[in-house]
Amino acid sequence: MLVPRTHGDAAMNTLLNHQFKLARRPVGMVQRGDFEYVTAPVAEPGEGEVLVKILYISLDPAMRGWMNEGKSYIPPVGIGEVMRAGAVGRVIKSRDPAIAVGDHVVGVLGVQEYAVAKGRGVTKVDPRLAPLPVYLGTLGMPGMTAYFGLLEVGRPKEGDTVVVSGAAGAVGQVVGQIAKIKGCRVVGIAGGSEKCAYLHSLGFDAAIDYKHEDVKTALKQHCPKGVDVYFDNVGGEILDAVLTQLAMHARIVICGAISQYNEAKMTGPSNYMSLLVNRASMTGMVVFDYASRYGEAAREMGGWLAAGRLKTREDIVDGLETFPDTLLKLFKGENIGKLVLKVADE
Amino acid sequence: MLVPRTHGDAAMNTLLNHQFKLARRPVGMVQRGDFEYVTAPVAEPGEGEVLVKILYISLDPAMRGWMNEGKSYIPPVGIGEVMRAGAVGRVIKSRDPAIAVGDHVVGVLGVQEYAVAKGRGVTKVDPRLAPLPVYLGTLGMPGMTAYFGLLEVGRPKEGDTVVVSGAAGAVGQVVGQIAKIKGCRVVGIAGGSEKCAYLHSLGFDAAIDYKHEDVKTALKQHCPKGVDVYFDNVGGEILDAVLTQLAMHARIVICGAISQYNEAKMTGPSNYMSLLVNRASMTGMVVFDYASRYGEAAREMGGWLAAGRLKTREDIVDGLETFPDTLLKLFKGENIGKLVLKVADE
Repeated sequence: MLVPRTHGDAAMNTLLNHQFKLARRPVGMVQRGDFEYVTAPVAEPGEGEVLVKILYISLDPAMRGWMNEGKSYIPPVGIGEVMRAGAVGRVIKSRDPAIAVGDHVVGVLGVQEYAVAKGRGVTKVDPRLAPLPVYLGTLGMPGMTAYFGLLEVGRPKEGDTVVVSGAAGAVGQVVGQIAKIKGCRVVGIAGGSEKCAYLHSLGFDAAIDYKHEDVKTALKQHCPKGVDVYFDNVGGEILDAVLTQLAMHARIVICGAISQYNEAKMTGPSNYMSLLVNRASMTGMVVFDYASRYGEAAREMGGWLAAGRLKTREDIVDGLETFPDTLLKLFKGENIGKLVLKVADE
Repeated sequence: MLVPRTHGDAAMNTLLNHQFKLARRPVGMVQRGDFEYVTAPVAEPGEGEVLVKILYISLDPAMRGWMNEGKSYIPPVGIGEVMRAGAVGRVIKSRDPAIAVGDHVVGVLGVQEYAVAKGRGVTKVDPRLAPLPVYLGTLGMPGMTAYFGLLEVGRPKEGDTVVVSGAAGAVGQVVGQIAKIKGCRVVGIAGGSEKCAYLHSLGFDAAIDYKHEDVKTALKQHCPKGVDVYFDNVGGEILDAVLTQLAMHARIVICGAISQYNEAKMTGPSNYMSLLVNRASMTGMVVFDYASRYGEAAREMGGWLAAGRLKTREDIVDGLETFPDTLLKLFKGENIGKLVLKVADE
């Protein structure tokens, strides 16, 4: 927002920044009151920094974890700090010679309209190769997570049965399609008929609607040889159901547990001894570990996108001010595809 | 037991066999009434079979699982069948040319005084190399489980911190000592000061008495760099405590969950998302998968035993008829070292 200053030089304009800051640590389900919506002048980029006008903000299940105190794979967001988020935007000022005004960049820019960031901390993207929101989804962290989590941790072989939960979400949609490209039988688990129809449109072999079907029974039907790879985004009862249907030497990729993030106390998988019975493994992954290989993955997935072998869908909600409610959509499972907040026109 | 027949040829004797059969599937903690104590004539070995007089029977936590209905890594014991157990004994009749009367053998011979077994199904052992009960412990399944579970699944590197639960039990005592041989820092978790003193006598770097200490606090103290390898025999709260103290890329070996076997409903590890935070894995193992390599492990462990680098302890209880109560000792954590039932003098 550009507003004239009410005092001083009338020719000068002060750029104002709307931001969501973390006001308190949520207890249970995240609430609007956990955030504070503030207005502050936009800061000036220092040496080596850029000022980015944010266009789209990525809403990710992981954000719930960043709001909690305590040890995790990255430090929590501090109280009073701008809420952490991935975002894509256009550079409007640059003091990094490698980045020009007008360039589009992605990075961890926060839930706000403008961000000052280190030039080395953002990545240039080309809106002619893919729509900007795709750089927050299939060509962004969720896509990287799907690619490395499935291929490096899940290690599917041709003919394997791959099951993915949260299958109509940002990560799940990509996991299933890559597994199909690799010659696997793919079963997606999602909530509701609309999501299941979407999974069928992506070429999944079967879709299980956990809201209306018994997951264990459906898995037995759709995975007659058992589950070789399970890519888990949800945890809870669905993880427990899949554990009962493992094939020998199955690999479970622990990518997330969205069903549990807003619970006061996590519930562990009571059927975990199936790991012993089936000589199976459950392995956690964090996408950041593969940062040096993002380029390689982006090139391969870009090729699949261009060839129409990989489809992608974004669920775009308009307006920064909707952020707390839009974030809740994620935990209520209301989004299909990558949930993105649109902050400004391109 | 050799008793004169009450009818027929007085010169003929009929050998009688006392057996424990599974009478019903236990609900919760195993009870005496889950077994039936019966007497039956000893069967004659057929072609390729041997008749073994059982001397020692192995009591293992896994027996509880074999009593349950349902899919596992081996079929359950059927109602009315002799309870499955490993045992060592002396061959008293042989119709297998590779096995002579007087040979000592180990195999899955059941909870009884005499067993007819396929000659190919048993393994000859030499009582001059090690006392017979050791072939049920450190040189038997528990030792093999420790060896392959630690070295193949846990993959400790020199300098790693290795934690083992059920550390004073048949498997745990071997896991810790092998980890020491491999140059690791070793922390054992066991219940009670006597067991902890035993762990210190084996050369463990630290012992945590879970009955009198807060396991998480003690782990923080004894594993300042976190836990690289956790060999889990117990599950439950101890598994959850260790999950909070993992080092990056930690490996958890799921070998058993004795704290849970008698529970109506297993409790899963609620802290399993630590696998994600630490890029760690939890992998199940069943010793049978390494059967082709038992010889290799027995040779190496036999060498360590002979050299005094590996110590072994057996907790020997006298009398087949005590079987149900002696089995309960295991689930009450009353044994130190390998729990063995002595059936007859050598």
